[in-house]
Amino acid sequence: MSSHPIDYRYGSKEMRAVWDEEQRLDYYLKVEAALARALAKLGKIPAPAAKEITGKADSKHVKLARVRAIEAETKHDVMAMVKALTEQCGEAGKYVHLTATSYDIVDTAQAIQLKEGLGILVKKGKKLLGTLVHQAEKHAGTTMVGRTHGQHALPITLGFKLANYAEKLGSGIRNLEWDRENLVQAKFSGAVGTYSAQTLYEMKGTSLEQAVMKELGLTPAPISTQVVARENIARIVADMAVVAGSLEQMAKEVRNLQRTEIGELGEPFGKSQVGSSTMAQKKNPVDCENVCANARVVRSCVAVALENIALEHERDLTNSASERSMLPTAFILLDDMLDRMEGVMAGLVVNEEQMRYNLGLTRGAIMAEALITHLVKKGIGRQDAHELMRIASQKAIREGRDLKEVILEDKIAMNTFSEQELAELLDYSNYTGQAIEKTKEIINKWGKWA
Amino acid sequence: MSSHPIDYRYGSKEMRAVWDEEQRLDYYLKVEAALARALAKLGKIPAPAAKEITGKADSKHVKLARVRAIEAETKHDVMAMVKALTEQCGEAGKYVHLTATSYDIVDTAQAIQLKEGLGILVKKGKKLLGTLVHQAEKHAGTTMVGRTHGQHALPITLGFKLANYAEKLGSGIRNLEWDRENLVQAKFSGAVGTYSAQTLYEMKGTSLEQAVMKELGLTPAPISTQVVARENIARIVADMAVVAGSLEQMAKEVRNLQRTEIGELGEPFGKSQVGSSTMAQKKNPVDCENVCANARVVRSCVAVALENIALEHERDLTNSASERSMLPTAFILLDDMLDRMEGVMAGLVVNEEQMRYNLGLTRGAIMAEALITHLVKKGIGRQDAHELMRIASQKAIREGRDLKEVILEDKIAMNTFSEQELAELLDYSNYTGQAIEKTKEIINKWGKWA
Amino acid sequence: MSSHPIDYRYGSKEMRAVWDEEQRLDYYLKVEAALARALAKLGKIPAPAAKEITGKADSKHVKLARVRAIEAETKHDVMAMVKALTEQCGEAGKYVHLTATSYDIVDTAQAIQLKEGLGILVKKGKKLLGTLVHQAEKHAGTTMVGRTHGQHALPITLGFKLANYAEKLGSGIRNLEWDRENLVQAKFSGAVGTYSAQTLYEMKGTSLEQAVMKELGLTPAPISTQVVARENIARIVADMAVVAGSLEQMAKEVRNLQRTEIGELGEPFGKSQVGSSTMAQKKNPVDCENVCANARVVRSCVAVALENIALEHERDLTNSASERSMLPTAFILLDDMLDRMEGVMAGLVVNEEQMRYNLGLTRGAIMAEALITHLVKKGIGRQDAHELMRIASQKAIREGRDLKEVILEDKIAMNTFSEQELAELLDYSNYTGQAIEKTKEIINKWGKWA
Amino acid sequence: MSSHPIDYRYGSKEMRAVWDEEQRLDYYLKVEAALARALAKLGKIPAPAAKEITGKADSKHVKLARVRAIEAETKHDVMAMVKALTEQCGEAGKYVHLTATSYDIVDTAQAIQLKEGLGILVKKGKKLLGTLVHQAEKHAGTTMVGRTHGQHALPITLGFKLANYAEKLGSGIRNLEWDRENLVQAKFSGAVGTYSAQTLYEMKGTSLEQAVMKELGLTPAPISTQVVARENIARIVADMAVVAGSLEQMAKEVRNLQRTEIGELGEPFGKSQVGSSTMAQKKNPVDCENVCANARVVRSCVAVALENIALEHERDLTNSASERSMLPTAFILLDDMLDRMEGVMAGLVVNEEQMRYNLGLTRGAIMAEALITHLVKKGIGRQDAHELMRIASQKAIREGRDLKEVILEDKIAMNTFSEQELAELLDYSNYTGQAIEKTKEIINKWGKWA
Repeated sequence: MSSHPIDYRYGSKEMRAVWDEEQRLDYYLKVEAALARALAKLGKIPAPAAKEITGKADSKHVKLARVRAIEAETKHDVMAMVKALTEQCGEAGKYVHLTATSYDIVDTAQAIQLKEGLGILVKKGKKLLGTLVHQAEKHAGTTMVGRTHGQHALPITLGFKLANYAEKLGSGIRNLEWDRENLVQAKFSGAVGTYSAQTLYEMKGTSLEQAVMKELGLTPAPISTQVVARENIARIVADMAVVAGSLEQMAKEVRNLQRTEIGELGEPFGKSQVGSSTMAQKKNPVDCENVCANARVVRSCVAVALENIALEHERDLTNSASERSMLPTAFILLDDMLDRMEGVMAGLVVNEEQMRYNLGLTRGAIMAEALITHLVKKGIGRQDAHELMRIASQKAIREGRDLKEVILEDKIAMNTFSEQELAELLDYSNYTGQAIEKTKEIINKWGKWA
Repeated sequence: MSSHPIDYRYGSKEMRAVWDEEQRLDYYLKVEAALARALAKLGKIPAPAAKEITGKADSKHVKLARVRAIEAETKHDVMAMVKALTEQCGEAGKYVHLTATSYDIVDTAQAIQLKEGLGILVKKGKKLLGTLVHQAEKHAGTTMVGRTHGQHALPITLGFKLANYAEKLGSGIRNLEWDRENLVQAKFSGAVGTYSAQTLYEMKGTSLEQAVMKELGLTPAPISTQVVARENIARIVADMAVVAGSLEQMAKEVRNLQRTEIGELGEPFGKSQVGSSTMAQKKNPVDCENVCANARVVRSCVAVALENIALEHERDLTNSASERSMLPTAFILLDDMLDRMEGVMAGLVVNEEQMRYNLGLTRGAIMAEALITHLVKKGIGRQDAHELMRIASQKAIREGRDLKEVILEDKIAMNTFSEQELAELLDYSNYTGQAIEKTKEIINKWGKWA
Repeated sequence: MSSHPIDYRYGSKEMRAVWDEEQRLDYYLKVEAALARALAKLGKIPAPAAKEITGKADSKHVKLARVRAIEAETKHDVMAMVKALTEQCGEAGKYVHLTATSYDIVDTAQAIQLKEGLGILVKKGKKLLGTLVHQAEKHAGTTMVGRTHGQHALPITLGFKLANYAEKLGSGIRNLEWDRENLVQAKFSGAVGTYSAQTLYEMKGTSLEQAVMKELGLTPAPISTQVVARENIARIVADMAVVAGSLEQMAKEVRNLQRTEIGELGEPFGKSQVGSSTMAQKKNPVDCENVCANARVVRSCVAVALENIALEHERDLTNSASERSMLPTAFILLDDMLDRMEGVMAGLVVNEEQMRYNLGLTRGAIMAEALITHLVKKGIGRQDAHELMRIASQKAIREGRDLKEVILEDKIAMNTFSEQELAELLDYSNYTGQAIEKTKEIINKWGKWA
Repeated sequence: MSSHPIDYRYGSKEMRAVWDEEQRLDYYLKVEAALARALAKLGKIPAPAAKEITGKADSKHVKLARVRAIEAETKHDVMAMVKALTEQCGEAGKYVHLTATSYDIVDTAQAIQLKEGLGILVKKGKKLLGTLVHQAEKHAGTTMVGRTHGQHALPITLGFKLANYAEKLGSGIRNLEWDRENLVQAKFSGAVGTYSAQTLYEMKGTSLEQAVMKELGLTPAPISTQVVARENIARIVADMAVVAGSLEQMAKEVRNLQRTEIGELGEPFGKSQVGSSTMAQKKNPVDCENVCANARVVRSCVAVALENIALEHERDLTNSASERSMLPTAFILLDDMLDRMEGVMAGLVVNEEQMRYNLGLTRGAIMAEALITHLVKKGIGRQDAHELMRIASQKAIREGRDLKEVILEDKIAMNTFSEQELAELLDYSNYTGQAIEKTKEIINKWGKWA
């Protein structure tokens, strides 16, 4: 039985595994084992005991069912795990969890999850970035209309559009990579962050913390209370939501450009895929719609992460249950979104013919800027030129004629160019400015990194 | 394997079942069966076919695994279910899903889920309301200090505090009950809401819709597109978040009043429950902290529900994946919160001795208002009286003396009362105003309803 | 100097006035005057004093500048107002604010604001509803294509589309009207909600509260602490955000249907309005874009309103500053959105010719459902009929032919109808189902109420 | 008239000025002037014209009222500004706005605002950080109880608590400083981001963009459409909300530790400040409550910023109105929060006597961890030691005795230490672990930077 779609519908196996309940137990045990080995290295417990603990510290030996049974009684999940592990370790059992407080285990285990989760996101993000770069290169010179406010504006190229997305995604993924290295912090500083338990064992808590972190390849927080400060988690989730927003934008773009009336782009569509249960002709951009839907959910996680910062005193528990929901949701849905967009972008259907057709829809009116600029260059005041073109282009559309025809009748305008010059001015492919150059710049920038 | 805590940690079996993946399939099938019976009643398909379909329309016959396999190929979950059901129904198979569009099934099945989910919330809410009313009655006259800004203000009674919560919860649950009756709407209006498919069968789509709804005990939306408008879902989720906020407030209150320094209230605490893995003395208000944590998550669902309203045209799919996450999360976590608060409130530890002790902490200063009012009544200007008491009460606290002593030295004040009158004025239990009366009023109001 | 756009750019004068700083002072004073009159009626202060206070209780006598000066010293805005009013009232001054606590004034004044603010929203909402009903009536039979997933689906009528919006808006505004009557609550229950101050004056606090409310035309909360419970404010703001979501949907629809490639609807466009500073031809749906932008801000207010519920004890101050921002923002922006959509809907440009053109874009493929249903009626299995049409319609689009031609070549299909019958089946206007009937139903429902 | 509190109540003059409507006009004009000078440097317009434009490009010459009047007609604020500036520049007027699109101006002007706004936040953040470091140093050795779950846990020092806050704030402010340098990007790439207008003037748009940016000290976006990508704005606002969360935590801590029953810390309180209009004795932590309230509003801005990312095509306008509200709100409220916390932390009332008193409240039970660790060291199994102390400490509290007395009666425990050793084990100041060391580490880290 599963009620939440991250458990039965969305996300890769790889990412789900990171947040799986049983895997969480394994991470807890992994941290307990690292603690035992660190204590042994510092000479505080016998090396064989550390070996014994390490050998038993996995969910094959410490069964989830047993831990749950103990927790049902004690209402404390970490103590339940400690007890269950102790049961498995015989004599060595008395060295389990030594000097640790629950959240030394929980926050350190969660740091492993964050690191693995971010690692997967970065890997998939780079793959998608590579795909975007590839498509941008392929379509660097494919002229299409640029749109603002949903209205035709000026020509661009498809590569240029994709290069903008590559820049967005590249920055977003680079941030997640940076976060993985710099914002994931663990702790082994005890019940209120003062390392007091260790002093009784004549050892420096900070040394033990360093030793545990070394075992696990993690970084300790510069200072902590019972818990690691929640600011970094909020930053990570916010950075994930920004990436989700970039993906939402791409997905929305494909949805819009796949509209029946526009038809310039399309999601790849399986041969036996069904578009609609009643409308057989339809090709619905379902993956892109799905990405847009899940972006909302990822976005909503940020509010939770931000509310979690202001814990009371040396900690309260209000971050706990909310992180249990929020982190798997955010990571698994973003993982799903990246996979889905990879599928869309890798198999993107590009209809160049339709792009050319659409470019001509306004009968030249989108070249108004070019003409205004030309007129100004020829000495007409900017306001006057703007007004002249506003009237002419609206006339052309109203009367269903090409702008060229209307301009040819305009004496003021025709004083400034020959008919031949006018034709060149109105050639769309002459008016993509530095689109191709910029596209290549972005391809170079991210192509190496992805 | 489960990654989301609503699948392994939070919520009752009853509520999880409503949102379970397999149960969802059962709801889909139930709607298909209702459609078949409705079509039969309108004479559009043979009665035996409707019977056959009804007999096969459950997840025992139509296996989740089979549906998933078809969906993997077709990428369309409802068509997969239709195909799997058709496979089971032999000759009658051709009547399956007749005249329906996918979302006739999905939105109608979801209406069943919403209705069942709200029913459970209302049931549990009423139970908790009954518990609050009972505790308010029991402690109607238990004097304790009222606090504003975290500072002692004036005496109240514990019953009065609880009566305030009863009013909040009562209103909130009554709203959910109202929502269940009035805001849960289903639809059977076809692919764009115009009932066009039915016209080809010489029947009125609205009649078929009415017949299906009658089979299922549901109400149709006054008008719909391919989908039911999402406004009502947003309203329901917002009303749930308001209840979550009320529960958060109660939980926060118990947490604050259970502080080591305050000690007036406490969560019930199991004999073998462990407070802390290292600090054996602790009794942590973990259930209340949990409620506060999950309130954040429920609250965050509202943003998703609100974003889902503005679908494009006769629908896009962006509400779909986000509702799949958001609705189970909101319902199951709120269910968990209600259960948890029921446990807390039913077993609430009340320390009346500590309440009396705390009342005396400010050495009488909290009676300043009573004295100001008395002074004003005796003819002293309100501003002067306020100033006199401000100085006196701060002096009492600064010098560690009772307010009474300080006042006794104040000639202006002592002109207005005898020492005996002063003592009566300073008696806390004389100064709870209409607290008890109001408490009874609320008990009467909600006691009958709960 | 103004930094926030609700102070210089958005919202009507009428709505801004409700939330204006100086007006707020006037509301405070109005409540103080009502208190004085109520006290006089109960025989607790001299009638002439109440008259004197009432005469001075406005911002003409009690200057905002004076109140600010006192607040700068005392850091307490209500006490500053009380002092400034007292200064104006001579002998009667000593009766100012008698038995009241600050939040008796603040929450009661805010109830007036909520009531006036909701009144304006309801008035404007009804006006827009009337406009929608009018346009729905006018275009009840205007056939256009219905779209799902951005793809052509089936024919609808423009009136039907607008009727869906009317139902959404109607429900939303009716809710706000209900909220205005039922959720706006004030209080006069003193410092912790027990009416204790009044008992010293030998009066029942609840009687005084009733008397004050009667003076002001308000309803008291069933029970309160120092403050009115914040649940109702959250409900009101959520209901406002739902209306904002409905408006966002309409605005998004106009934006989409105004796209250069679609061109079915348009915002009214002033003759001298400038579409773009460089692209003279453009007609941008700026009002609709603005509505979508502000919907985000209104939506974000809900999170604040929900966080404000869980105040500590008999109140803390954390709702105060956040309501000062959130309420004016939500009310003034929603007011602006209603005005803007009124402008758009009243002057909506409808291009019927383009609607007809677009209907033909898929060359008949949108009639697939009609044909499937027909085939099934003629005895072909539903799955087979669906598959036949899927292949045929995709073939028609791929080969740039009309669906009719492709079907004419299909022997299985042509066994079921004559060429004449096929033509009728493919006539769009024959296939709008009950669209017109439903439209009229909605017009009747809301036309009377608006 | 002002309706929003950032216009009449919150924020410094300095920060309000950045977001003021008239100042915004000045920033627009400043960008137009920079454009003129850049064009002149590239030899595209006469140097005297650039000088003339620069001389007139401020709100003294170009009046807000005139711009508004033009906008009322044209419904386009930038074109209105351009026209008003052109009117002022005589002959040079025709060179105004040459090759520019509106958002070249708007996004570049907004980059100036973001940079100035962040500069102010960083300045104030550093000041507060310095204050925290100073207070942490002063109270490095002040022992107090550490609390988890609102319950007494183990001793810490006040300096250690403040050092945790310094680390949080330091990281947060360092992020804002980084954002200021790296995330504020402007653009001068024309109507769809391709620099097409410039090509008609035989110049490279990227060169002109570089020249304009140099004039203004800004960085251009690596690639842009009509607008700068909104991802960075979302990142900045999220980073601001994280700082708001850290401040909320500090403010909540002061509020909690100022509770009547705790009394360890207090907000500074003015001599003539009024705590309550009726309860003269009260000292309410109003500044800290205010900070917590405004944190909610700043937090809510993140949702808006994230929704703004997914603009359509080469831009739509939905970010515009929402940024107009959201950015001033976030910046001005965070500015206010920083100022307010500066006041609180600089004048923080520290009651060391009460800290000592509270440390003793649990009669030694908070030393349970120390004793458990000791017992384990002496060879008792961890689970047994934990159980022994759990029973003993609960017994001590239940019977109102010191833990020491109860332990003295425990034979198993007393086998492990002498009475003298027990006393030392129970000395709070011996059990703050590395609190002081860690505090100094943080002081060193941030003291230099602040």
